[in-house]
Amino acid sequence: MTLKELRTHFTGEIIPDADNGKTVTLAGWAHEIRDLGGITFLVLRDRTGRAQVTLVKKKIDAELLEIVKRMSRESIITVTGTVKAEPKAPNGFELLPETITVVNEAGSPLPMDTTGKVDAELDTRLDNRFMDLRREEQTAVFVIRDTVQKSIRDFLEQNKFVETTTSKIVAAATEGGTDLFPINYFDREAFLNQSPQLFKQMLMSAGLDRVYEIGPIFRAEEHDTRKHLNEATSIDIEMSFADHEDVMELLENMIVYVYEQVVEKCHKNLAVLGIELQIPKLPFNKYTYEQVLDIINNEIPEIEDKMVFGDDIGTQAEHLFGEYVFNKTGESHYFIIDWPTETKPFYAMPYEDRPEISKSFDMMHRMMELSSGAQRIHQHDMLVESIEAKGLNPDGFEFYLKTFRFGMPPHAGFGVGAERLVMTMLNLDNIREAVLFPRDRKRLSP
Amino acid sequence: MTLKELRTHFTGEIIPDADNGKTVTLAGWAHEIRDLGGITFLVLRDRTGRAQVTLVKKKIDAELLEIVKRMSRESIITVTGTVKAEPKAPNGFELLPETITVVNEAGSPLPMDTTGKVDAELDTRLDNRFMDLRREEQTAVFVIRDTVQKSIRDFLEQNKFVETTTSKIVAAATEGGTDLFPINYFDREAFLNQSPQLFKQMLMSAGLDRVYEIGPIFRAEEHDTRKHLNEATSIDIEMSFADHEDVMELLENMIVYVYEQVVEKCHKNLAVLGIELQIPKLPFNKYTYEQVLDIINNEIPEIEDKMVFGDDIGTQAEHLFGEYVFNKTGESHYFIIDWPTETKPFYAMPYEDRPEISKSFDMMHRMMELSSGAQRIHQHDMLVESIEAKGLNPDGFEFYLKTFRFGMPPHAGFGVGAERLVMTMLNLDNIREAVLFPRDRKRLSP
Repeated sequence: MTLKELRTHFTGEIIPDADNGKTVTLAGWAHEIRDLGGITFLVLRDRTGRAQVTLVKKKIDAELLEIVKRMSRESIITVTGTVKAEPKAPNGFELLPETITVVNEAGSPLPMDTTGKVDAELDTRLDNRFMDLRREEQTAVFVIRDTVQKSIRDFLEQNKFVETTTSKIVAAATEGGTDLFPINYFDREAFLNQSPQLFKQMLMSAGLDRVYEIGPIFRAEEHDTRKHLNEATSIDIEMSFADHEDVMELLENMIVYVYEQVVEKCHKNLAVLGIELQIPKLPFNKYTYEQVLDIINNEIPEIEDKMVFGDDIGTQAEHLFGEYVFNKTGESHYFIIDWPTETKPFYAMPYEDRPEISKSFDMMHRMMELSSGAQRIHQHDMLVESIEAKGLNPDGFEFYLKTFRFGMPPHAGFGVGAERLVMTMLNLDNIREAVLFPRDRKRLSP
Repeated sequence: MTLKELRTHFTGEIIPDADNGKTVTLAGWAHEIRDLGGITFLVLRDRTGRAQVTLVKKKIDAELLEIVKRMSRESIITVTGTVKAEPKAPNGFELLPETITVVNEAGSPLPMDTTGKVDAELDTRLDNRFMDLRREEQTAVFVIRDTVQKSIRDFLEQNKFVETTTSKIVAAATEGGTDLFPINYFDREAFLNQSPQLFKQMLMSAGLDRVYEIGPIFRAEEHDTRKHLNEATSIDIEMSFADHEDVMELLENMIVYVYEQVVEKCHKNLAVLGIELQIPKLPFNKYTYEQVLDIINNEIPEIEDKMVFGDDIGTQAEHLFGEYVFNKTGESHYFIIDWPTETKPFYAMPYEDRPEISKSFDMMHRMMELSSGAQRIHQHDMLVESIEAKGLNPDGFEFYLKTFRFGMPPHAGFGVGAERLVMTMLNLDNIREAVLFPRDRKRLSP
């Protein structure tokens, strides 16, 4: 017998009425043991939920009861028994056990509570992530994150995108920035890539036409906030024969598709988190950067730092503007478009008739920025000038610039932060809650 | 008008009979221009194939002809015209143009030939990867790789696996090895992860039950061979309440599913590569390590280095044994099982009745090893002993060992090299052909 045969069902797969009277074997953790004298309840937990194993003293083999009494919480157990539909039990059934086996005994005291009855600080939780993830709210977050990523892939596949994988070890900084982690690469200096931007553009010249990648990006920024990570997951797309309008439409449709899929496939997980997901309305509202400036300066008195053209939108302004949009439209998602060229990276395409403005956008959630994108410059000489205008040396970008000289189509694209997408969807307090093993300024382990 | 509207069809989407007489716009590269005097052919290429644009001198606007004559090869063009079914043309149709626009002129001479008529060295090709990828054989490889990864995700989802993402920046070596790339992480020493092994095992303790990850792994090995990379993509799975037999069954079914999907969805791409894919037969043949030893020592005289128990199987022996199996069974895929415990990492589970042998396996293709896996040790004290037996210090693994003390289910798993899977499937000469931007001892760019 193989070990897989030791379990016949996940708890969540039992259908109380249909399976009533059936013999099943469940495997999981001893979540709770309640001895009420004449009756003892053992709650078995697995990824999909919980099952109540009921032992009535007068009816049950004394040896079985002894096993349960000696059992430490969170031990690994398997239980074979008969399903009995029981509306009062969790998930509508109880299991009347025939055999109970302790497969791997848990030590005590436990490093953290898993019942959700005791609150723990985020740091304690992350130090004991393996215990923290046993709480059903945390399991729910990662089951939903799986669905989010799967839905994005499905959506992009339907739209003729090809999944690509690009190198994380690079010789040059994507945007000439300094916030890079240096690596010792066989005694040469290399860096961890901060974005697949240059690669995905090169793949436009290569003719792959529509590419996406969901992969790690690395930023050595010294921030310590609720919404930044030093290692994050970026959902990156690039599309040939497309402009910023085209990819904005793609992006808003993608977000709506993801929300719809999560509502459809993860209703149990959403219920665990107490979330009723509102599907964003299409099309998303659009505000030009200059409209945002105007509203910030004239309609939102709480914003302390008034802005002039060329300023970035600060955290407070971003937050209050998000509230303003939400109060006005009832929608959390919106675009800020037509940013000043000087605020965007060198590859953003300026408007022909007004080159101080670029064909760029940020896709916002009222809580924070989720995505940023643009039509890109596809003309070699204009790109060289733009690199120089940012104070960078085009020589360092020759491997990239070369691809613009021999047949580069017009193209546009965006990147979305996967963790931010999950965080805003599930209203999580801290982005670290959307990452299994977060990396930040202080945290390198587990 | 947005740029997306500039193209109505990919060339591969035109159905000659159904679309005969229809006006369409195609966009892509000027692949070839052939001036035969009275008639000029312009071949437009996109990701999906090629279209022949036909200009008959007597019938066509002189200005259109002039545009084509001035056009440099590999320039970006769009062509609007009428589809005419024409069995002799590539893909069974030609396009009679109304407008032709050069969107972005290509310079000349081109850094590399893209017609496939001129052979180039692999190094030249990788230096000019954006041009190399324009050859239809190279496009085919990456369209197939996309299908391979998508099929694996679908298969694992059907088998109740959850996709996870784990950190690539780590404080400790997975297997205590020395072949790691060091990173400067905010003035602390860290490393690029060589495998998600420890994370995926920790997620078994966390209760995620069945997890997979397709992500980058990094190995600072100084090899320079046809089948090694310093940055590769690993398909990693881990499964609770399962042993080595269970995951071997999962693995062989996964491989067969991937082959079936590629045959079904990528027949055009396979045809470009001249490959008729043979779907492996289930179940895969299994040879114990000791059987392999016996055959190598007694039945394959060409193998120079005879082996004793505990030896690794060398490259020559691996290759000749693969040929032996293929000649005997007609199958390329097979398992070598029950490896000596001393040859496997500390987390491999030994057999109870014969602890010098472990519940481990390698999944082989006649060309090379594709995967390795095992049931894992889930008992804390046994694991500590096993770490010590490898000469490692358990203190360095406390973040991992802790997860074994408080409820760790029995589990098993494997890792598959994505590039090797594609390489062996498509019979590629060099693993670098299966990577967009390979990283090796010498190559850091593009």
